[in-house]
Amino acid sequence: MAKKTQDAQELSKNLKEISIAEFFEKNRHLLGYENTTKSMLTVIKELVDNSIDACEEAGILPDIKVTVKPTEDNKYMIRVEDNGPGIVEEKLHLAFGKFLYGSKFHRLRQARGTQGIGVAGAILYSQLTTGKTAKLTSSTGKDIIELDMTIDVVRNQPNIISTKKEKNLKGWHGIKIELEIEGRYVEKGQSIPEYLKQTAIMNPYAKIIYNGPNGKTVFERATKEMPNLPKEIKPHPHGVELGILRRMARTSKDLNMSVFLRKNFCRVGSSSADQILKLAKIENKTKPSELRHQDIVNLHNSMQKVKLIAPSTDCLSQLGESLIEKGLKKEIQGEHFVSIARSPTVYKGRPFAVEVGLAYGGDLNAKNSAELLRFANKVPLMYHNGDCAITDAVKSLDWRRYGLQQSQGSMPNGPLLILVHFASVWVPFTSEGKQAIASYPEIIKEIKLALQDAGRKLKIFISKKKRNKEIEMRQNMFERYIPEVAESLSKLSGEKKEKIIKGLEGFLKKEEKGEKK
Amino acid sequence: MAKKTQDAQELSKNLKEISIAEFFEKNRHLLGYENTTKSMLTVIKELVDNSIDACEEAGILPDIKVTVKPTEDNKYMIRVEDNGPGIVEEKLHLAFGKFLYGSKFHRLRQARGTQGIGVAGAILYSQLTTGKTAKLTSSTGKDIIELDMTIDVVRNQPNIISTKKEKNLKGWHGIKIELEIEGRYVEKGQSIPEYLKQTAIMNPYAKIIYNGPNGKTVFERATKEMPNLPKEIKPHPHGVELGILRRMARTSKDLNMSVFLRKNFCRVGSSSADQILKLAKIENKTKPSELRHQDIVNLHNSMQKVKLIAPSTDCLSQLGESLIEKGLKKEIQGEHFVSIARSPTVYKGRPFAVEVGLAYGGDLNAKNSAELLRFANKVPLMYHNGDCAITDAVKSLDWRRYGLQQSQGSMPNGPLLILVHFASVWVPFTSEGKQAIASYPEIIKEIKLALQDAGRKLKIFISKKKRNKEIEMRQNMFERYIPEVAESLSKLSGEKKEKIIKGLEGFLKKEEKGEKK
Repeated sequence: MAKKTQDAQELSKNLKEISIAEFFEKNRHLLGYENTTKSMLTVIKELVDNSIDACEEAGILPDIKVTVKPTEDNKYMIRVEDNGPGIVEEKLHLAFGKFLYGSKFHRLRQARGTQGIGVAGAILYSQLTTGKTAKLTSSTGKDIIELDMTIDVVRNQPNIISTKKEKNLKGWHGIKIELEIEGRYVEKGQSIPEYLKQTAIMNPYAKIIYNGPNGKTVFERATKEMPNLPKEIKPHPHGVELGILRRMARTSKDLNMSVFLRKNFCRVGSSSADQILKLAKIENKTKPSELRHQDIVNLHNSMQKVKLIAPSTDCLSQLGESLIEKGLKKEIQGEHFVSIARSPTVYKGRPFAVEVGLAYGGDLNAKNSAELLRFANKVPLMYHNGDCAITDAVKSLDWRRYGLQQSQGSMPNGPLLILVHFASVWVPFTSEGKQAIASYPEIIKEIKLALQDAGRKLKIFISKKKRNKEIEMRQNMFERYIPEVAESLSKLSGEKKEKIIKGLEGFLKKEEKGEKK
Repeated sequence: MAKKTQDAQELSKNLKEISIAEFFEKNRHLLGYENTTKSMLTVIKELVDNSIDACEEAGILPDIKVTVKPTEDNKYMIRVEDNGPGIVEEKLHLAFGKFLYGSKFHRLRQARGTQGIGVAGAILYSQLTTGKTAKLTSSTGKDIIELDMTIDVVRNQPNIISTKKEKNLKGWHGIKIELEIEGRYVEKGQSIPEYLKQTAIMNPYAKIIYNGPNGKTVFERATKEMPNLPKEIKPHPHGVELGILRRMARTSKDLNMSVFLRKNFCRVGSSSADQILKLAKIENKTKPSELRHQDIVNLHNSMQKVKLIAPSTDCLSQLGESLIEKGLKKEIQGEHFVSIARSPTVYKGRPFAVEVGLAYGGDLNAKNSAELLRFANKVPLMYHNGDCAITDAVKSLDWRRYGLQQSQGSMPNGPLLILVHFASVWVPFTSEGKQAIASYPEIIKEIKLALQDAGRKLKIFISKKKRNKEIEMRQNMFERYIPEVAESLSKLSGEKKEKIIKGLEGFLKKEEKGEKK
């Protein structure tokens, strides 16, 4: 017994707090840093996503400059610069030098990043692999601030090495981040150029200038029209979880229940609040902070039962059918394009919407299986293709109905590119690296519906194309025999051969016109 | 410009800290809580893994009691009790009621859990879905402590509702955790009974009593022999990352470099320390805390270059070939069993070892593809099968070489069960839910080697079985003709038919013996 007690004392002694930065330092593969090729892409992705988010939030057409320059063996300097609103001096080091620090986590509104992890992860990866400091430059239009910093991993705090303040003569505003990292540079497949191309497709109002190790590429914007800035919404009663409701009630200072419900949830007015309270058998004069456990359980149940309008969907920022086609046409040499933007729908009180674009024919390879571009909140998903709701939905659809070839359960074959965009206030990523969407049945179903809508549109084109090809073949066949037929007819009728040939050719053209109407 | 400045002020104002508990509350699918079936399994898994870890660490043969009882619609009471060392009163609430709090994170030594997330996640899921408190009972052999608690999500702190202290008349020690959760109970496939069965296979020295909604199952222990308790090791110079080395140096109080290297790393003696320092052109008398950036880069480079013995592998706790077979035989009705425990190897300075067990024939279904049981540090991996290094390795092996059928790139077919155990001081899980191992090439390679070793052993059995079957068929065939042949021979030779029959039958038996040698 004595021994055991001592063991427990001994073992308990080692229990201590782990900083979230230490956690990610040790588990950096969770953030997408498991090998040098992927790590390099992840750094670019985190910086670019963050930049476009910042621009959009401030209503500024994004101008993003990305630079990748080899320094020494397997080392690269990465720089991403935007023309966003910048960050004020007091918060600059915290915004990027501290894990789980951000402005978007507690908000119900579509955004690329929400976790307050991305850029800090890139800085951590840089200091882990090269030991270099991160250089941050920011201006809100006033002075230009420059910081040299590292992350103090044990305390999860930014550690400023030096600061510099400069006059802002040209009125620049934005953020510039420069890091040196270990990496391996590739240009095909899951690569930085491919990521930037897909970003340009899905964000056709952004201009992206890429200075890579092998030269410069400019992705021009295809439009100056920006999607609507999504609005923040309150949680919907149908989506709130018991534990969260309990916390909201316990910490509420509201003096009665109706105010509490109307103030904290969307789509609750006086009469629906009354209905909820009546069903839960709670008096309006009760203070929310004084509800007992059973009251909260009852309240939660009745909140699920009372009929309410679905949450407003202006918290989403869909791209829309026209912009999807513009984006695709800009970067893909296809023959025909179709797009579908489904109306938003709701999952557990959280609005989401699916958009689909298809490119067909042209330069797309007819012999391979279709290419799939996956996006979540306008960000390309480059990895974990096999573990994603979008892939599941595409493979489980019967594409043969739409005139394409497919072995069951596989990607369809043919000169086809499939773009799927999942937009939501909350994307259930399968990991912090944000490369795949968890396979919730509600999500898969909605993606399949969007694909079906797009497939039907595409089918019209494919069928027409097939029919035209058949007609053309028939014509070609007939055309070849025209002189012979004309000769025989001429002999039989005494009519001139040339006239008969002209007549026969006229028939052909008519048929063609008729069919093509 | 004015507008932009204001925007930045406005936008920066919202920047704030996010607690890790809030992060996981919102992203609970990262911990394995994405649907009610899986969530229920995850709760059990976290509690049981934690219990077995505690017992092993204290050298106690684990006795684990698991209870699952329906309470109301879709709600279940879950209780897991162990006979481990318990946790002292002062730390009990912290050990389970705070995310990123644990004893195993900073240690290089094999353990089931290391993150300090698991049990806190289960408690969080419970309070989210039922709003009930968690009941923790612990004794280190002295008084029995009972706590009722919740997690204060905003502060990531345990919140004790009530405590009780009782005399410990029977000298009990261990931990008991009781939670009420929302769940969906299943018994097939990815289920609690299957998880417990696999746990019993891989931990044959543990006794597990399961009181489920449909009755009681006891998984008896097959052995009282426990695997060696793994030892903690220091990091190996070949595995340290630049950023970590930098931090170690900066915070070191050592007075010279040789002491610093020898004290903080394994496999570094005076002469290898001298070699490293000479190569890096650093004088021994330099204080580690005063190294400049370039010194650290040089030190890091030369640490990679100097030849050193591989790290000691007693930080691992392999099960061993004999226990793997015992575990399999206990729960699987197979005809033949083989096992392989590969010697540990090292990846980035981190030791790991692969063990494989195969069960063949018997009750295993000959018509299906082989069944795969995946384990990491003795814990069954039940989800994300398609995204796991173990699955990749099994599918990419050519099983036809070992007498099995297989379409290329698929699981082999036949009455086969494949068990793969990956043991390491650091398992690169693809998410915090710990259900799949990231596909590092070094890991896949080692798993394939283990599978090949096991495959060769199995092949001997399968070949013999095939040959015996052929002989048997030949014999049966010949046996059928013996009377006829004997009759003819008898007529020709005048010998008695009965004697000839006996002689012929004697031949057959000899052949059989000869072949079976």
